[in-house]
Amino acid sequence: MDPLRFVEVGPRDGLQNERAVVPAERKAAFVDALSKSGLREIEAGAFVSPEAVPQMADSDEVFARLNRQPGVLYSALVPNMRGLERALAAKAGKIAVFTAASETFNRKNIRASIAESIERFRPVIRETKAAGLPLRAYVSTAFFCPYEGRISPAQVLPVVESLLGLGIDEISIGDTIGRASPQDVRALLRALGATVEPEKIFLHFHDTYGMAIANALTAWREFAITGFDASSGGLGGCPYAPGASGNVAMEDLVYAFAAEGGETGIDLNRLTEAAKSLEPVLKRPLASRLSKVNLDGGNND
Amino acid sequence: MDPLRFVEVGPRDGLQNERAVVPAERKAAFVDALSKSGLREIEAGAFVSPEAVPQMADSDEVFARLNRQPGVLYSALVPNMRGLERALAAKAGKIAVFTAASETFNRKNIRASIAESIERFRPVIRETKAAGLPLRAYVSTAFFCPYEGRISPAQVLPVVESLLGLGIDEISIGDTIGRASPQDVRALLRALGATVEPEKIFLHFHDTYGMAIANALTAWREFAITGFDASSGGLGGCPYAPGASGNVAMEDLVYAFAAEGGETGIDLNRLTEAAKSLEPVLKRPLASRLSKVNLDGGNND
Repeated sequence: MDPLRFVEVGPRDGLQNERAVVPAERKAAFVDALSKSGLREIEAGAFVSPEAVPQMADSDEVFARLNRQPGVLYSALVPNMRGLERALAAKAGKIAVFTAASETFNRKNIRASIAESIERFRPVIRETKAAGLPLRAYVSTAFFCPYEGRISPAQVLPVVESLLGLGIDEISIGDTIGRASPQDVRALLRALGATVEPEKIFLHFHDTYGMAIANALTAWREFAITGFDASSGGLGGCPYAPGASGNVAMEDLVYAFAAEGGETGIDLNRLTEAAKSLEPVLKRPLASRLSKVNLDGGNND
Repeated sequence: MDPLRFVEVGPRDGLQNERAVVPAERKAAFVDALSKSGLREIEAGAFVSPEAVPQMADSDEVFARLNRQPGVLYSALVPNMRGLERALAAKAGKIAVFTAASETFNRKNIRASIAESIERFRPVIRETKAAGLPLRAYVSTAFFCPYEGRISPAQVLPVVESLLGLGIDEISIGDTIGRASPQDVRALLRALGATVEPEKIFLHFHDTYGMAIANALTAWREFAITGFDASSGGLGGCPYAPGASGNVAMEDLVYAFAAEGGETGIDLNRLTEAAKSLEPVLKRPLASRLSKVNLDGGNND
């Protein structure tokens, strides 16, 4: 079986949706701790408007402070050319852009239609490719939208195909409000499977209703999907999506895949400790299951 | 597809492992609220030694206070004839006995070998049958034991067969420390499937590592298991099993099955409100996912 490809989005998607202000130094230390757990890719920040997303205003400083590990890719989210310039200056190793499968959500989130948002990616894609960097695109609300309700695979497919047609290397399919169930995952992956290679698909689950692990295992077992996003500690939520809770916790996801015989390459103790180091700053216990158990105690055979 | 058969164990397995003292009146009100959610079976108490399990010392009073709903079965756990007498006096509708698949766990938990514990059931089974009541047996640590580590299906099968041979009607297979993954569930259900009818099997998952939902959906989808235990609110834990957290939350389990097209017959709002009513007594937020979201808000199509 192919090794799993985990993308840690806690420092970006997680922290940008936390209320507590986390200083750049702590963010960089968090990313550095994560980079020693076996994770190969970490989205370390976003070069977006500081007014729109104050939590990410210091991403330049976070990137500057990183103690980069060989073999670890540090990616960044950008909304436009201005963001790309900052990301390139910060030496981000991969560039991520974002849109949605729900028109209403996209308009409320970034004040553009889906088509307009994809149009805006063109110069970003061109310049990223000129810089020799790989590109990811997020497609959020790919199963349910907090405003429109259920989103059909027929709405997601053209968005994914447009993005791949523009030269995006991989698509992260987001269950933004955590409402998807395994049968929703099957329906979407069946629809995408006709034209999209499975290695270009990453799944990005939130765990609002507790179904993220079941969804991820279904995608892996039944569709050979190996790319999964998660946030260590289950950080985050989504202030733009009513009722959304955090990303699925990376440690819980890695534990599940390891228990199922997947090749994760990750040291669960180091991973869990990385997120736990943020608890004093967040001033709340982490949402992950593994952060609550003693991995060294008992029989962990 | 056959309707799901949920057994609510929060008032017993959940509360017996909570630190907060919950008065009998509150316990009975909790059971009554649960009984109006569509649940058909509620384990409302245990007639065990009050020294061993102080939380269950008032089970007689809890049963006496119930406003019994037609069509709802109120069951009770008993360890011996003394317990059975109290359960019959309390008009319990089903009797549950308990043992384990791990010798070490059973010895530490009830100071008897597995064989001895099953031997002790004989008079309880005889008198329960004489009273015309159905019988359930719990087999805990059926996947992992906190002392012995992994428990093989070959250890579980003879325990289950002995119990069924004695006339027990249904077996609740427990993942006491929540370590099982879908492939462990598959391995055990394949082993049991050769001799045990699926309708006699209930699965009893704890959610320590976040895999209970994935496990339950696997058992249902792949093995046609329809019987599942859970605790509303994810109440409980297990003080005898290091690192164990509560039972999987009934509302999260029901949500997952409903999302997957299962016939649950349960009103999720009523179910979730029943457990929420205990939050002031427990003085902590519930562990369930659904207790944290607004089911009436957003699009719940």
